[in-house]
Formats: sequence, structure tokens, C-alpha cells
Amino acid sequence: MANRSDVAKWAGVSEATVSRVFSGGAVKEATKRKVLAAAEKLDYLPNAVAQNFAKGRSGHIGIILPYLPKVRLFSVDYFSELLSGLGEAVREEGYDLLLLLRSPEEQDYSELFRARKVDALVILGAKDTPEQKSTLDALKKEGLPFCLIDQQFTGSGFNEIIADNTAGGYMATQHLIARGYRSIAFLGGPATYSNARDRLRGYKLAMEEAGLPIRDQDLLQGNFSRKSGYEAALKLIRQGLPDAVFAANDRMGVGLIQGFKESGRLAGRDIAVIGFDNTDASKMCDPALSTVDVPYFEMGKVAAKRLLQQIFSGDRLPFHERLPVQLVVRHSCARAGEGIILG
Amino acid sequence: MANRSDVAKWAGVSEATVSRVFSGGAVKEATKRKVLAAAEKLDYLPNAVAQNFAKGRSGHIGIILPYLPKVRLFSVDYFSELLSGLGEAVREEGYDLLLLLRSPEEQDYSELFRARKVDALVILGAKDTPEQKSTLDALKKEGLPFCLIDQQFTGSGFNEIIADNTAGGYMATQHLIARGYRSIAFLGGPATYSNARDRLRGYKLAMEEAGLPIRDQDLLQGNFSRKSGYEAALKLIRQGLPDAVFAANDRMGVGLIQGFKESGRLAGRDIAVIGFDNTDASKMCDPALSTVDVPYFEMGKVAAKRLLQQIFSGDRLPFHERLPVQLVVRHSCARAGEGIILG
Repeated sequence: MANRSDVAKWAGVSEATVSRVFSGGAVKEATKRKVLAAAEKLDYLPNAVAQNFAKGRSGHIGIILPYLPKVRLFSVDYFSELLSGLGEAVREEGYDLLLLLRSPEEQDYSELFRARKVDALVILGAKDTPEQKSTLDALKKEGLPFCLIDQQFTGSGFNEIIADNTAGGYMATQHLIARGYRSIAFLGGPATYSNARDRLRGYKLAMEEAGLPIRDQDLLQGNFSRKSGYEAALKLIRQGLPDAVFAANDRMGVGLIQGFKESGRLAGRDIAVIGFDNTDASKMCDPALSTVDVPYFEMGKVAAKRLLQQIFSGDRLPFHERLPVQLVVRHSCARAGEGIILG
Repeated sequence: MANRSDVAKWAGVSEATVSRVFSGGAVKEATKRKVLAAAEKLDYLPNAVAQNFAKGRSGHIGIILPYLPKVRLFSVDYFSELLSGLGEAVREEGYDLLLLLRSPEEQDYSELFRARKVDALVILGAKDTPEQKSTLDALKKEGLPFCLIDQQFTGSGFNEIIADNTAGGYMATQHLIARGYRSIAFLGGPATYSNARDRLRGYKLAMEEAGLPIRDQDLLQGNFSRKSGYEAALKLIRQGLPDAVFAANDRMGVGLIQGFKESGRLAGRDIAVIGFDNTDASKMCDPALSTVDVPYFEMGKVAAKRLLQQIFSGDRLPFHERLPVQLVVRHSCARAGEGIILG
């Protein structure tokens, strides 16, 4: 196969010019045409595609996404931000993302490597189940590079990029306590997700530290959907409002605000609400929702970079990074007559 | 390469059982283990991967997404919904989606086919520019299947799946007129997108039909961002409020509502606002935003299905489908004292 130097000679330009043409840099139109003609003549495959091809690589990082019929996955900010970060990082190495929507039963992940579809896998939305764990154990044993995002399998030695969910849960609760609220309910997500468990842990830490009791009725179970937040609001109204609610994600936080509003209770006046994730929705609802910012975009970027390093180097030392989160204070966690300090 | 029948014989089971094992159906654990051992022994590549491999296909549909550094693409509902629809349709044929983030200069699309990365392309967010047009003309000439979504190149004969944006613009405006509003402003998107042009066309049609004048100051230019909606609100306040504003997408509609609110004007009381797209944001803002529902999910699904047909049949007859849109009435387009008829 022709290389860059062959194309440069044929076109009568420098190798740097050839590179510029194929990376979309500024090149005179006439020069560009000469280079493209030479490349076509010599059947030159520019850039990373050629290199990967020669090394038996696919040039793809596979993204496993949980497939559930009728659920519109990409609408969830969580996945959207991660995908954007992953996309930005792989671009720099001439890689592309292969989206793999797989139902929980379809776990023939090593097949994807054998069929040369991917050089590494990022696994999103993994649940902590024995089946998932054994699939991943098998991949690891075969030395196939993969990475989990925001899901921990403790003691597994898998590559993991997570957010500091425990610290986030602690911060959110601590902020409510610092405002003087005493009865603080927690609306949690499914316990098969380690991020849901860690946010709960942070809440408990802060409550214990402040010597505040957690009554059974303070622990509500949701499923991360807006609807489950809405229903939790109705439940809280029936059992008597606490001072504040910490929802383990923004969608449930928005649902709480809407549920309270329908019954004449305003978040930011009658009850304080705080969410988690800092999604677009938290800015658009009224009152704007206090929340914890999670660097999903960065997490996607870091995961892709670390995997690409493993692909290129052959090294398989497990990596495990925990990225910091940040409290974002908006109007939803005030109550009547209070001054609001916006963060 | 071994086929299903070889594996069935080796494992001493029926071919149906082999299929069930690889599609994740219910099979006794011992049987499953026998089949998997046979498959490994015979180097059997199950399902669509094998078939595509044998036919020299990649099993991927490429999705070209405009790449702009620092812009988090997937956050935009428009892309998210389309991707979900595309993902659902390709799954049924054992295909996967290859996400290709490309800057406007990187238009070596036919290279993607030559390098066996894709069997067809879906092009999202294409702009109506001479460069884009000539790239697509070249693809068409080579007989490489591709499809545009919600962007028309009139007279080009390209495969296109679009929404009926003109009808949507007409419906939205017509609804405002039917409520008795007379001065109706239009906040448009960039004219390089045919959907922006068509929504404007619909607005003009309805205004003309009702004999209502369009003054220069009624036509505002935005860029589909929330910020441009916010700024348009301030401009409208300075020049004197019209009865109503039709924003060419929801993000600008939400920006309008927020801009008005900051100056003490409430949408749904002091001014009517209607958007376009029926995104999540339209349900979460306050008041909820009236809008036009666009079947992006369906559009993605149809595009993928039609392209897969072209891949399998070899047929290249151009397709062009226009999907219907629907008016969604919420509180933002009422005014004080009016009853609201919710659709």
C-alpha cells in the first residue's frame, strides 16, 4: 500500500502538505487537488484508518448500551454527555465509536473482538448482577480491554471511571443541614447501580455526622424517572412534608417539584429540593433545581483516552479513576423568607 | 467457515437450539455449554456478523454527525431521538451504528465505504452548502447508499426523510391566529437548514391566508440556541411586545419564556409563546411550552429501514418520505383570562 511519502513525491509536495490535506488544514485549492489525485492514483488510505488496517485493528471503540424496547436511551442526559466526551477523545486518534445496543441477555462481548468489530469496549449502564460480572470476568481473563463508567464491581480489578457519588451525596445533604433543615428525606435509585448506592451512603454519612435521625419514612425508593419523583411527592404529602428532599438524580427532582406544585406546595418556598447530575432539565424547571454537577463529559473523555493507551501499548494494568463532583445551589433548596446564596 | 448445521451436528442438538443459544433464548445450561464448546471448536461466527462477513459487508450503518469542538452534540434532543430510532431499526437486522463525528472539512465519505467501515451512511445536521452538495453528488454517482434526515437538497434526487416542517409552521401560526392574536412575531433558525426555511414558510402562509401583515420587526433571527431565544425576548421588550411569538424550535422558545420572565412578563399571561420539536424541555419549563411534535424517533427508524433495504437488495431507487407533525397545546400560548384548551 502506498504511504504518505509516495503520495508526496507523486504530487510534488512535502509530506507535511499531504498530512495537512487529509487533516483538513489550510492548503491552496490547486495543491489540494494535486494531492488528492496522487492519493487516488496510488490507492493511498490516509491517516489512522490505514495504520489501524495494517495493524489488524478496527479503529473502533465499542460502546455497549443497554437495549430495552421502546426506551429512548439517548434522551437521557447521562448517556448523552458521556457519548459526547467519548466521541471527542476518540476523534483525536482517528477512532470512531461503534454503538452496540444490547439487551441484558446478549453478552457475547468477546465475540465483538474476535469479529474485529472493536479494539476495546466501554460499558454503560451495567448492572451489578452475577451474569454481568461473569461476562466481564471472562473478558478480563482474555486480556480484552474494557472499561466501566460510573459503575463499580468492588474488588474485581476492572477498569472503572466513576464520579465521587458518595462525596456528592454528602455535600448535597450537608448543604441542606447547613441551612437549618432537620427532617430530610432521601429519594433513591435502583440498588443494582453502584452510583445509587453511593449517593445514599453520602446522605447517611452527613445525617449521622449531624446527629440527625433517619426514620423509615424518610427513605423513599424511586427508579430514576421523572414519574417516580412525581409519585414520591404525592406520598410525602400524604405522610406529612419533611423540611427537605434529596433526590438521587435530577429527573426525580424535577418530578418532585412538579408533584408538589400540583398540590399547591412550591419547592423553594414550602419545601427544599435538591437533585443530582446537573442536567439541562435542572436549569429549565421552575424553580431551578439545586443539584450536584457530575463531569460525565470528562468521564467519557478519560475512559476513551485510557482505553486507547491500553490498545496502543498492549499494557493491561487496571485503571480506576474517581472524578470530583460539585454542588450547584439554585432556588429549589431555599424556603420562604430565606436569603438564597447562589453558588 | 463452519455454519449452524455443523455446530448442531457437533453438539448433538437441533439447529433451532443453536439459534436459541446465540439469540439468548431459554436453553438448559448443560445444552448451552455443549453448543458453545462446539462453536468455539469449529470457529463458528453466529448470526448476522457471520453473514455480513461472508458477503463482504461491515454490518454497520455510519452516522455522520457534525463535529464542532466543545459542542456537546448528543445533548440536543433532536440528535438523541434520531439516534434512538436508528439504533432500534438496525438492531433488528443485526446491524450496529458507527458514529462518525466529522468537521465540515472532513468529507472523505466514500473512503468510509472503501475501507469497509460502513455499508450505508445517514447524514445528520447537513448544511445546504456547495461543498456538502458536491460531496453528496459524488457519493450518489458512485452508487453508495446514503440518506439525509430533515434536510432537503431540492432537485438532487438524494434519499431524504423529512418532517412536514411547512405544515408545522402553518399549524402553529394558525393556532395563534385562531386564538385572536394579530401581531405575531417569528423567531427563526439559520437559513442553511431547510427545516428552518420551511418553518418560516409555514408561518408566512398562515399569516397571508389570514390577511395579517408581517412587519420587518416581526421577523427575528436566532440560531436555535436557548441564549438566542433569551436575547430575542429582550429585543421584543425593547421594541414593544407583540401578541405572540412563534419560535422555530423549543430551545429558543424556552429562552424566550425565561427572558420574558426576568422582565416580569409571563408567557401564558402577558404574551403567547409557541415552540417546535416537542422536546423534554418543553414539558419541564414553566409554563409548559406549546409546541409542534416532530417524530424524530420514527424518522430515524424509517431512514435505517430504507437504507437496509437498499443494502440488501442492491436497489438504488431514491426514496423521499415526509412524515406528519402534530400541534401540542400547553399553557404558554394562553393569555390572561382565557380558557385553555389542552390538546
